[in-house]
Amino acid sequence: MYRLIIDAMGGDHAPQAIIDGTVMALQEYTDIFVYLVGKREVIGQYLQEQEYDRDRIEIIDARDEIQMAEPPVNAVRTKKDASMVVGMQMTAEGKGDAFITAGSTGAAVAGGTLIVRRAQNVLRPALAPILPTTKGGVLLVDCGANVDCKPVFLQQFAIMGSIYMKNVVGIPNPRVGLINNGAEEEKGNSLTKEAYQLLKGTNINFVGNAEGRDILSGNYDVVVCDGFVGNVLMKFMEGCASFLFGMIKEELLSSARTKIGAALAKPAFTGLKKQLDYTEYGGALLLGANKGIIKAHGSSNAKAIKNAIRQAREFTKMDLVEKIKKDLQDNPCK
Amino acid sequence: MYRLIIDAMGGDHAPQAIIDGTVMALQEYTDIFVYLVGKREVIGQYLQEQEYDRDRIEIIDARDEIQMAEPPVNAVRTKKDASMVVGMQMTAEGKGDAFITAGSTGAAVAGGTLIVRRAQNVLRPALAPILPTTKGGVLLVDCGANVDCKPVFLQQFAIMGSIYMKNVVGIPNPRVGLINNGAEEEKGNSLTKEAYQLLKGTNINFVGNAEGRDILSGNYDVVVCDGFVGNVLMKFMEGCASFLFGMIKEELLSSARTKIGAALAKPAFTGLKKQLDYTEYGGALLLGANKGIIKAHGSSNAKAIKNAIRQAREFTKMDLVEKIKKDLQDNPCK
Repeated sequence: MYRLIIDAMGGDHAPQAIIDGTVMALQEYTDIFVYLVGKREVIGQYLQEQEYDRDRIEIIDARDEIQMAEPPVNAVRTKKDASMVVGMQMTAEGKGDAFITAGSTGAAVAGGTLIVRRAQNVLRPALAPILPTTKGGVLLVDCGANVDCKPVFLQQFAIMGSIYMKNVVGIPNPRVGLINNGAEEEKGNSLTKEAYQLLKGTNINFVGNAEGRDILSGNYDVVVCDGFVGNVLMKFMEGCASFLFGMIKEELLSSARTKIGAALAKPAFTGLKKQLDYTEYGGALLLGANKGIIKAHGSSNAKAIKNAIRQAREFTKMDLVEKIKKDLQDNPCK
Repeated sequence: MYRLIIDAMGGDHAPQAIIDGTVMALQEYTDIFVYLVGKREVIGQYLQEQEYDRDRIEIIDARDEIQMAEPPVNAVRTKKDASMVVGMQMTAEGKGDAFITAGSTGAAVAGGTLIVRRAQNVLRPALAPILPTTKGGVLLVDCGANVDCKPVFLQQFAIMGSIYMKNVVGIPNPRVGLINNGAEEEKGNSLTKEAYQLLKGTNINFVGNAEGRDILSGNYDVVVCDGFVGNVLMKFMEGCASFLFGMIKEELLSSARTKIGAALAKPAFTGLKKQLDYTEYGGALLLGANKGIIKAHGSSNAKAIKNAIRQAREFTKMDLVEKIKKDLQDNPCK
């Protein structure tokens, strides 16, 4: 039985979406046991309306909540009774194998780092979401946990990302790219030039530099960069999509003919929306923490939560923390 | 008369597109004189087919060319007879007010820095393209000239970008954003945290941090970052657009209904393409060089070259180099 700890109070649609998603997951996976952390009476009330296996769920009372706008390190340190902190604490104590939250990203990273802590041999845990590409997805490591990095951090991000894509996503020999300002080996800033040399000496499928235009090309399974670049990129992707869709909409509404065309083409846009749907991709991982930590999207609906639970279950099933520890011991990064 | 020096041999469609664009510009602007630099007989042959004012054009013979894949600094240093190097040399010697090339970006930056050199008080020239937004355009400084930056470089990028948008694009009080991994003042890596404090003390309209999702929102006229981040972002924008359009196309072709819709909606996509058309935006500037240096897109057609020439003319007309020198003297950056 995989024991998963879930923050019932985090996210835009909490607790409804979290509880609905949890119940869906319990129905789909008979080998999971979940702790739902949050206000007992609120969770109890939502659960009342649901059918589920009562033997595989336990409510853990936590009276406080961390707000999205709070300075995360301070919140994690002082709000001892927040659902995020109580859940992280239980995870650290080994009461569960993995923790799932749709709450504040900053607090999830701070809690993962300060409470659950890093796994042995890991220098810095990194936040890693899967971005959609034309052929499947690409894991972006780091998208915001470490804004200032040493080259060896990037080397470890690459190794950890590779282990994840191989064992959890099932890609036999993940192609790893270093996000850089040119394709040639000699390109880069002082960080990436040095990281390139370290990556060449690493026992993974390092295929070279990934330029910005190639990140979503499907030519990479993992791309690594410092958390500053990753954060700006991930949010810029959102910005580009909303810019382009805004422009398309404006143009489509510009004449009667294109309006009719748009109405007929609508199923295509719905299909596209589904393909780009983050809810399919589960959450971002805090790779390198001493337990599975999954940060689901803040606007997660029930399906997204269910998928994040699936991801946490697979992460646990594949014993990923142990694999990372062992791999980093066999391939020491200095 | 504004004297502009044009690299006739650089770019995917050189020399045809360069010469056609030059002739278009000569017809539109009667106050420019151009030097076309490249193989005399080749330029002469293309010019033969055109009607233009022969008194406002002069061919400067240059026998060599810098290829796109060449290591740029080395190429600029050794290929003394390349059209790019001859043109830069003439610009440095004051034979012209501005230089335009659609050749290698690296060579344009290297040539600008090593031959034309930086203007007085400028610490580092920066490459600055205009990106389209929902409301006009935003100047991105730096998109690749300086991959490792000190905070004060970013401060100067902001000042120079602001001067450009005010004087050449005509925006009264350009809103300047610092590209960062969060909106709050305390967010950032070591570079941007320090740059934020410097920018606060600068006499420009600094409106705070710009997150990735806001870069194209139209809320900024200038956004600044180091050249590594800028390069990755600019190419990622290309990658996002081609990813999204690829997905849309695939979805539109997925059923008979959406195919008909797509055919009817086609004018909208053509309109959109026009709005995103880089040829409308001219080229990227090497801001802070001692003369106007315009790097047109490698795949520039004649219209794009004409617009880059217009940009060079406006840059010269507004005496931008002197304005930058003076402004940086009045507001010393340390």
